[in-house]
Amino acid sequence: MGMTMTQKILAAHAGLDSVVAGQLIRANLDMVLGNDITSPVAINEFEKAGFSGVFDKSKVSMVMDHFTPNKDIKAAEQCKQCRTFARKFDLDNFYDVGNMGIEHALLPEKGLVAAGECIIGADSHTCTYGALGAFSTGVGSTDMAAGMATGQAWFKVPEAIKFNLTGALQKNVSGKDVILHIIGMIGVDGALYRSMEFMGEGLKSLSMDDRLCIANMAIEAGGKNGIFMVDEITKEYMKDKVNRPYTVYEPDADAEYVQTYDIDLSAIKPTVAFPHLPENTKTIDEVGDVPIQQVVIGSCTNGRLSDMKTAAEILKGHKVHKDVRAIIIPATQKIYRECIKEGYLDIFVEAGCVVSTPTCGPCLGGHMGILAEGERCVATTNRNFVGRMGHVKSEVYLASPAVAAASAITGKISSPDEV
Amino acid sequence: MGMTMTQKILAAHAGLDSVVAGQLIRANLDMVLGNDITSPVAINEFEKAGFSGVFDKSKVSMVMDHFTPNKDIKAAEQCKQCRTFARKFDLDNFYDVGNMGIEHALLPEKGLVAAGECIIGADSHTCTYGALGAFSTGVGSTDMAAGMATGQAWFKVPEAIKFNLTGALQKNVSGKDVILHIIGMIGVDGALYRSMEFMGEGLKSLSMDDRLCIANMAIEAGGKNGIFMVDEITKEYMKDKVNRPYTVYEPDADAEYVQTYDIDLSAIKPTVAFPHLPENTKTIDEVGDVPIQQVVIGSCTNGRLSDMKTAAEILKGHKVHKDVRAIIIPATQKIYRECIKEGYLDIFVEAGCVVSTPTCGPCLGGHMGILAEGERCVATTNRNFVGRMGHVKSEVYLASPAVAAASAITGKISSPDEV
Repeated sequence: MGMTMTQKILAAHAGLDSVVAGQLIRANLDMVLGNDITSPVAINEFEKAGFSGVFDKSKVSMVMDHFTPNKDIKAAEQCKQCRTFARKFDLDNFYDVGNMGIEHALLPEKGLVAAGECIIGADSHTCTYGALGAFSTGVGSTDMAAGMATGQAWFKVPEAIKFNLTGALQKNVSGKDVILHIIGMIGVDGALYRSMEFMGEGLKSLSMDDRLCIANMAIEAGGKNGIFMVDEITKEYMKDKVNRPYTVYEPDADAEYVQTYDIDLSAIKPTVAFPHLPENTKTIDEVGDVPIQQVVIGSCTNGRLSDMKTAAEILKGHKVHKDVRAIIIPATQKIYRECIKEGYLDIFVEAGCVVSTPTCGPCLGGHMGILAEGERCVATTNRNFVGRMGHVKSEVYLASPAVAAASAITGKISSPDEV
Repeated sequence: MGMTMTQKILAAHAGLDSVVAGQLIRANLDMVLGNDITSPVAINEFEKAGFSGVFDKSKVSMVMDHFTPNKDIKAAEQCKQCRTFARKFDLDNFYDVGNMGIEHALLPEKGLVAAGECIIGADSHTCTYGALGAFSTGVGSTDMAAGMATGQAWFKVPEAIKFNLTGALQKNVSGKDVILHIIGMIGVDGALYRSMEFMGEGLKSLSMDDRLCIANMAIEAGGKNGIFMVDEITKEYMKDKVNRPYTVYEPDADAEYVQTYDIDLSAIKPTVAFPHLPENTKTIDEVGDVPIQQVVIGSCTNGRLSDMKTAAEILKGHKVHKDVRAIIIPATQKIYRECIKEGYLDIFVEAGCVVSTPTCGPCLGGHMGILAEGERCVATTNRNFVGRMGHVKSEVYLASPAVAAASAITGKISSPDEV
């Protein structure tokens, strides 16, 4: 029996010729990641276990992105603990206020993740790096602690689902609509502990930002990981970022996929996930009249340059609706600078948006745009669970940057075609 | 006996020919101001008192600046309460995320305050508008409630202190150094319930931003208000902002000043207020070796365009010290846009600073840069009380934007001459 992309990466990192779904393996790690809320827990476990050092100071990353610039004393103390640890072990990749970004936008940008690598992160959206043809998945803080010390982690080799993409995205449709469409189709447990493997001639219609967004939300379908076949677009993306050899893994012709979905990208419409689950999707023509009070454009899902570009192109020359607070969060300092250079920042502020320093902030109800009772937000983030962005009686509608920007202008969930 | 500037304004607003220090008067108000943490208290009082409306919908301002974009559910609920009130009474000047700024930077910028006017605000730094030759002072939320309903407030006419300014500021010395020098000289209760009246030929060396900064911190010397003689610089500033007649009040020749200080501006050095009082001042040559972990450049005291310009000029071509988080907060959306246009934002981000959406945030320990135990911050804010910016064992050093920017580069309190 042949192997999937994920299985090949896991086998190689376990020093095995082959693996099969369900097998327990111990894999070598290329990167272990934590943020300002998960790393402190991992550090405590690390110290409790009596570990004396990290396995490789170039392969541990800590990114202070969730509650920074520190939203309160607890956040300040947590960052301080991470900072102290990073200095003690001389970590190469400690990212603090000023040189940081949202972790899952930052690591690919910095070339810290690459095709064929095996990556764990104490954050559920670590699956983002599958966009580059890597195996990457979210783990608990205890696994992060062990990973930092040993450079290894245990995995159960996942079964796989194939997504065979055809066609090309239409105007104002992006990776976010693709993954919302898929989650709407298979449900939030539709890929439970399975790898979601994306391939097919439709790939060439998907930019790296589209792919990063799609892989990012694999976890919202319950997936162990999401992974894309590496093509010229992937290689071009890594060219000026990854300065080490990487390996491209393709699935065997007889790789076992427990399910196969054929997705015609050209048929996908702008899609919105209604409260309170990412699977509650409606296409934009089905949404009806839903007034909103806030828009958030950013996050590890949709805070990249192309997302900013889309939002800027739609907002240009318009004003944010008087009843809406529109919060734009470029995901990294680099993206922020590019937004200045391209004139997007000026368009945003002229339109009546505010632009935040990079942070996960509102996505997880941390800070920078928390909702009151009864308020509704269209957000380009990844989760719309009850109370996710604030009050338990607030509502989050997940959408693409195009839909979010259009909605900011009209004051209700809207298609970009309407503005 | 003649009257001071403050006394003349109060007399005019009380419909009296003259007033004397100590007299209780009821004055008509030209503006009543609240923010997102004081307005909700005032609204509760307003409703409890059964008031049916506001005295003039063009003369009540509410600015959502302290904990916005909402840092938590409580902040969200408070803003929602203000928003509901503002809509109910159709307030002309409700400033929410997207069109707002820090209240004391915003109101002068919008032309909502002018020479000769009488202004109260439920925020201690309402004294800022004295820079324009207005009487303005901070009040409690109950006074704000009554002011919104009746358009009047009771005052005890204050005694006055004259600050006779001579000379001109030297390079890298600004209004912040002047007021820190004065507070260091007279102490935090040196002007208790007195008006601090600034005049003299030295005025012409002070920009409006310098004056707004100086008046802003009158409260830190215990002053009831700070007020500047109106000159051509003031009139020029108001020309394209204030579209209504205003009155210039000058002190009578025999006005009673209980104290007079002669301040030679040319002798003032960059000045830093050490923890934990604004009166604990040292000149920059006296500060010694004080490593820092954070720098904040912003606030109602020093978040204006000239402050941003100063910081940008010093940071240009430099990098923020690796151990420092540098947080820049342009005080209003307009200033933020001007910072984009002038290239300051790009300089800040290139140097390794982060740039926040307008907010009071860290100044009062709200959000956007809270300190952990043992951390030190050089801040261009106005108060360095115990725990003001976070942990009770953190420390805030008040300084000018020039000193703050220089310190961000060196990682310790530094003179701009050192970088």
